Amino acid sequence: MARIALTLAYDGSVFQGWQTQPSGRGVQDHLERALSAIAGAPVATICAGRTDAGVHALRQVVHFDTAARRPSSAWVRGVNAHLPAQVAVRRAVEVDPDFHARYGAVQRRYRYLIHRSPVRHPLLAGRAGWVFRDIDAARLRDAALCLVGEHDFSSFRSSECQAVSPVRRIDRIAVVEQGAFVLLTVVGNAFLHHMIRNIVGTLLMVADGRRDVDWVQQVLDARDNRGVTPPFSPN
Amino acid sequence: MARIALTLAYDGSVFQGWQTQPSGRGVQDHLERALSAIAGAPVATICAGRTDAGVHALRQVVHFDTAARRPSSAWVRGVNAHLPAQVAVRRAVEVDPDFHARYGAVQRRYRYLIHRSPVRHPLLAGRAGWVFRDIDAARLRDAALCLVGEHDFSSFRSSECQAVSPVRRIDRIAVVEQGAFVLLTVVGNAFLHHMIRNIVGTLLMVADGRRDVDWVQQVLDARDNRGVTPPFSPN
Repeated sequence: MARIALTLAYDGSVFQGWQTQPSGRGVQDHLERALSAIAGAPVATICAGRTDAGVHALRQVVHFDTAARRPSSAWVRGVNAHLPAQVAVRRAVEVDPDFHARYGAVQRRYRYLIHRSPVRHPLLAGRAGWVFRDIDAARLRDAALCLVGEHDFSSFRSSECQAVSPVRRIDRIAVVEQGAFVLLTVVGNAFLHHMIRNIVGTLLMVADGRRDVDWVQQVLDARDNRGVTPPFSPN
Repeated sequence: MARIALTLAYDGSVFQGWQTQPSGRGVQDHLERALSAIAGAPVATICAGRTDAGVHALRQVVHFDTAARRPSSAWVRGVNAHLPAQVAVRRAVEVDPDFHARYGAVQRRYRYLIHRSPVRHPLLAGRAGWVFRDIDAARLRDAALCLVGEHDFSSFRSSECQAVSPVRRIDRIAVVEQGAFVLLTVVGNAFLHHMIRNIVGTLLMVADGRRDVDWVQQVLDARDNRGVTPPFSPN
């Protein structure tokens, strides 16, 4: 038995999220069908972080166990030949049996690309979150500061969140401006359900001037998910 | 009667090209339905250059005549509210009655983004032409040189091309490398049917070493479209 780790990329706008669906249209369904075809036996996968419909992956980490001995090119190009154009394995390596994509993850990184424009751009549909209001990147940065560190993020979890503890650690929130774009990067150990989308929705209410900078601290302190802003679009 | 010029952007991968289709799925069909809704009367459009299915537009120029007097925001945001996410008016201006999007065009610019990678990237599916062979940008540049200027481009037109003359003028072919990407820009007065795609397919056969640099001149001199390479993907 070998344990193989994959780096996977996908365009989330055409799938119903990462997880296996009764419809067979989850990313996991497509990947497991393709891996099983190459392995010649059923393959079950575990990923570092499940993503919602509409959320893309640049470097999703996935592992699986298999008795099949294949060169890594088979787990990359061979598997890709069985996958739709919107998902592909970028890299495959054999790992130690104690490697675990989910429980062994040290850090997770989410990126939100925000497009500031009075008019939407069709080539960015599903690729960037469009805001027609003006966004002040410096305010966005200031507002994000109080979220860095280990906190009870109850205010930012969805009502369906099943995590036992609401405590998570954010290591870094970076805000980079380039032309019409703002790139928001959040790095942490793990995230609650909808936590990133709720954080982005909240920060944008400050960045566009609808709320004051210190409002984010109040939302965090409330530890109550009924008071927060609606989650920002998954785009 | 007022003549309005629009700058239009679209994601060509979800439409059957620019032109009106019996299915109603051409970009023109969607645009004319949306314009007619805002004008309150049928609107017919003329574009600078018809694009194939899969070809995107960043600044397609379109004009139409209408008796409806509307502020330019109605021709932008009002029309966009009636359009699918994959197409949008970016700008609208009233122009002189002798403005003509097609016959008045002084220059047209086509860009090809080429992604060099042993493995395809799903977030570039339909957005960039993928080549798994190594591409030498300097060879690509050298090979393109002989095409600049006014020439008989018969070798690069499709068999369905209906243009009276095969003579066109290319003002510039620029090749810019950035990391895994090569951006090819072709600027000219006008282009024959499939001319750009056939040029790119031909140049890539030189850039990846399958053909010598002087082969492009031979193809051009042949003035015969039966000898050329298959057109490169529209992506």
